[in-house]
Amino acid sequence: MTKKIRVAVLGATGLVGQAMLDCLIARNFPVDQLYPLATANSAGETIQFGRRDYEVLDAETFDFSKADLAFFTAGADASRHFAPRALAAGCRIVDNTSAFRMDKNVPLVIPEINADTIHDAPLIANPNCATIQLLMALYPIDQRFGISEVVVSTYQSVSGVGRSGVEALAKQSIGILNSKAVEDSEAFPAGIAFNVIPQIGTLDEQGYSEEEEKLYQESRKILDRDDLSIHATAVRVPTFFGHAESVFFRTAQPCDAAAIETMLSEAAGIKFWPHPSYPMPRYDALESDEVHVGRLRAVHDDTEAFSFWSVTNNVQKGAALNSIQIAEVMFGVRT
Amino acid sequence: MTKKIRVAVLGATGLVGQAMLDCLIARNFPVDQLYPLATANSAGETIQFGRRDYEVLDAETFDFSKADLAFFTAGADASRHFAPRALAAGCRIVDNTSAFRMDKNVPLVIPEINADTIHDAPLIANPNCATIQLLMALYPIDQRFGISEVVVSTYQSVSGVGRSGVEALAKQSIGILNSKAVEDSEAFPAGIAFNVIPQIGTLDEQGYSEEEEKLYQESRKILDRDDLSIHATAVRVPTFFGHAESVFFRTAQPCDAAAIETMLSEAAGIKFWPHPSYPMPRYDALESDEVHVGRLRAVHDDTEAFSFWSVTNNVQKGAALNSIQIAEVMFGVRT
Repeated sequence: MTKKIRVAVLGATGLVGQAMLDCLIARNFPVDQLYPLATANSAGETIQFGRRDYEVLDAETFDFSKADLAFFTAGADASRHFAPRALAAGCRIVDNTSAFRMDKNVPLVIPEINADTIHDAPLIANPNCATIQLLMALYPIDQRFGISEVVVSTYQSVSGVGRSGVEALAKQSIGILNSKAVEDSEAFPAGIAFNVIPQIGTLDEQGYSEEEEKLYQESRKILDRDDLSIHATAVRVPTFFGHAESVFFRTAQPCDAAAIETMLSEAAGIKFWPHPSYPMPRYDALESDEVHVGRLRAVHDDTEAFSFWSVTNNVQKGAALNSIQIAEVMFGVRT
Repeated sequence: MTKKIRVAVLGATGLVGQAMLDCLIARNFPVDQLYPLATANSAGETIQFGRRDYEVLDAETFDFSKADLAFFTAGADASRHFAPRALAAGCRIVDNTSAFRMDKNVPLVIPEINADTIHDAPLIANPNCATIQLLMALYPIDQRFGISEVVVSTYQSVSGVGRSGVEALAKQSIGILNSKAVEDSEAFPAGIAFNVIPQIGTLDEQGYSEEEEKLYQESRKILDRDDLSIHATAVRVPTFFGHAESVFFRTAQPCDAAAIETMLSEAAGIKFWPHPSYPMPRYDALESDEVHVGRLRAVHDDTEAFSFWSVTNNVQKGAALNSIQIAEVMFGVRT
């Protein structure tokens, strides 16, 4: 039997923090003591875990030596602030922010792909949700045929920015449908209701958004492929939950769609939708842990180019579930 | 002075038909007599043109010799049904349906690109809206650097299916926000409110949708480039007006983003948005005739690959305006 683990969750009142708590229970993670943490704003609130109420503690005054493991999901600044203290106190961290993802000493892990990089590292980074979704589908294909080039355009839901995004979409939609002036939310660079916004995160000098750069850099790190060409366009769309991706890729070796279909149908964590079925965010994201892949097509007049469409619950496999899966490997938990 | 032209509009009560009537006035098209036509369902309704009311006539009993020019926008079946009769009566046609687009004897025209193919053809086809949007931006680049490969993912508004699509999105959105069960519309293969649907038109055996095949085939015909690789993924999104496209392309010759920016800034019918600005459907589609292009980026580690984001009023340059522009060339009208 696995030893019980003392678990802290920093950002326990947020959308992903709550999903992590639910996921710990759903996967029967051996939680000994739970410490829900937050920054000063949310400390003092009450959250539920299983059948018990817990008071949310202020991370600033928390003694991290009380926890064996902490999930960090309160933003990159909070991670940079609290990580040194937690690690010094002997608490291992799964960080679901961008703070340490590109740090050479920090493994960036999707357990189905590179669990072997975890070893006994005290700090593991959870990749960006759109990266996880992309690589879960591409990895089995890369293993067998080699992928040389990827072009991805995303359709990302408002829950990607947390609860404020969900509230903004609902509020703005109601306003527009009632012909009332609605203030735009700070959650997005423009009004999101009945709109699509081709910017997620700030834009750099080359014109790339942060989300696009994450997809590029994180994918190359996780696949350990510095030669891989990945071009992303990240777009926010007015859906509540579930990200979608339109993915074009080129293989190093000629292959055919039937072989790719067989491979994806057998891959762990993938649900393959054969033609003419396909997944959609509103119907297929919420109640599911898998990366849904459909609309697999061979590109006309080309034996090395293909495309597919994928949908995933961005809060779940894109964040909470993947983090818990990392922790299971770190602590040798078998579920 | 241009001779006045007797004009029929088949589909005058639809979204695009109405936009055509508005556009005829906006561009001061020399309309002599106007004949708004519809199939039996809508005949007898009243529409406005300028300051006058017109009764919509039943196309079935209309004598097409009364008109010099007919715009057809009542669906491909109606075009196939009425075109032979109109042509036999000496009435020239601009057809805004898919009925004749791939017919070798019918020019498929975007006036900025291939007005020279019109000659004195009695029937000209107006391309699919997503094709017009794509080629307006790619054509100047193809002319100068040669384009060898295109990968496009679309974000297409509900107005693309006409008035029923606009009504369905509003109704479904209100229903969901009020937690009421809403019946899905036949306008789409699934509920569109707070969803994205990766299917526009029926799917063929290779898994391509009609819209994707239109983008592929029409683009090659218009550019007269049978060697051009164009891979499209067409997706319906919950926006009311304005299609958006995420476009990746490869050039035959090395070039740089600055040269492409200069070219697009000078191209007819294009509004270029320099970094860090970019267009969005909710703000920039409705009041504009142009194809808006922004987020131009050079692909990392590649001197022959680029991407951009475009937004256009799909009902206007994508349909009504382009059709009127074709008619202006056919009849030698200078605006």
